[in-house]
Amino acid sequence: MNQKPDAPNFDSTFRAGLLELLAWRRDVRRFRSEPLPPGMVERLIEVACLAPSVGLSQPWRFVLVEDVGRREAAIANFESCNADALADYDGGLATRYARLKLAGLREAPCHLAVFADRSTTVGHGLGRRTMPEMADYSVVTAIFSMWLVARAEGVGMGWVSILDPVVIARILDVPKDWRFIGYFCIGYPMDDEDIPELERAGWEHRRSPQEFVFCR
Amino acid sequence: MNQKPDAPNFDSTFRAGLLELLAWRRDVRRFRSEPLPPGMVERLIEVACLAPSVGLSQPWRFVLVEDVGRREAAIANFESCNADALADYDGGLATRYARLKLAGLREAPCHLAVFADRSTTVGHGLGRRTMPEMADYSVVTAIFSMWLVARAEGVGMGWVSILDPVVIARILDVPKDWRFIGYFCIGYPMDDEDIPELERAGWEHRRSPQEFVFCR
Repeated sequence: MNQKPDAPNFDSTFRAGLLELLAWRRDVRRFRSEPLPPGMVERLIEVACLAPSVGLSQPWRFVLVEDVGRREAAIANFESCNADALADYDGGLATRYARLKLAGLREAPCHLAVFADRSTTVGHGLGRRTMPEMADYSVVTAIFSMWLVARAEGVGMGWVSILDPVVIARILDVPKDWRFIGYFCIGYPMDDEDIPELERAGWEHRRSPQEFVFCR
Repeated sequence: MNQKPDAPNFDSTFRAGLLELLAWRRDVRRFRSEPLPPGMVERLIEVACLAPSVGLSQPWRFVLVEDVGRREAAIANFESCNADALADYDGGLATRYARLKLAGLREAPCHLAVFADRSTTVGHGLGRRTMPEMADYSVVTAIFSMWLVARAEGVGMGWVSILDPVVIARILDVPKDWRFIGYFCIGYPMDDEDIPELERAGWEHRRSPQEFVFCR
């Protein structure tokens, strides 16, 4: 007989803390350069692997980027893509874009690239037949799991998407079936901010949730 | 002068609870039919809107499916897609697939479809130039945020992906630029399980996190 433990009890103190964490978890772009404690990133990846995955396919692939040459190549790709992005903006928006701090790649002690292996046979394809992109979404829940735990421990994560997925896959020499999901800076944050950087910089503001709800 | 509150302190009790929640949060497919308290889903959607979004673009679009005819049409699409999936399996795998309970669409009191609006101009395209799929990933972090809070309050969510995105968009009559991310059953769970349903059913097992870590 399968012995099932009682459901955990998440009390009101925990639930208030969870809401505070979700509200405060900020994407971090300003890092101190001190290294993370040994084993910290590996432990965060273990947390990521607790995430739900379509058909239990566990399609997440975590690449710790430790080689200095590869890191520099990733930074160069960011700088190139960021320059292209800037060139697309005009006038005041271009001025504001140029002032934004969009990644902490030079300062962050840890670079982590994350991929989804859509070709995995783990899970026997369940739940991916009409929506192969479910593999990617599973990886995103893994990333967000480690993000939340990192923040609760005082560690910051910053998601860098101003990159060319094809170039990053080549720099990191990963299997061709792996789909690039994101490149992450991980380290201790310079500051703790409760307002998103893009809101503080006047780039965009947050809308009311009611604007996003529809009934059918 | 910008008055910045102190960073919240997430103590060891909270952090242990967070790990327990991430480990235990299960996708739910067996629901009791009793309704959720009024306002509960709307509050969960507010939590979802705390999620990070690329360029602060807030591309999440939440569609509460309340019309009985539309719900029935979504269920019919699930049944059709599920029959197609079953037909793709042979032998023992087909037998096992046929036994799986993959959605709680008939029992769950709440149906929520979630989309990403890749065409939104909110955020001025920041971070989406080389990776337009970042809008979808932002929506997934929103979904996972509400999932965690729901579970901590005793509410279950089940992610249904055995659907045709084109048919679902048509059933729900949403703008053509909206990309279908997932269809969710929400309600009180019949059971609290600490092992994934697919693992209990012998469909797949969880691998060691070490299998998913690579260095470059």
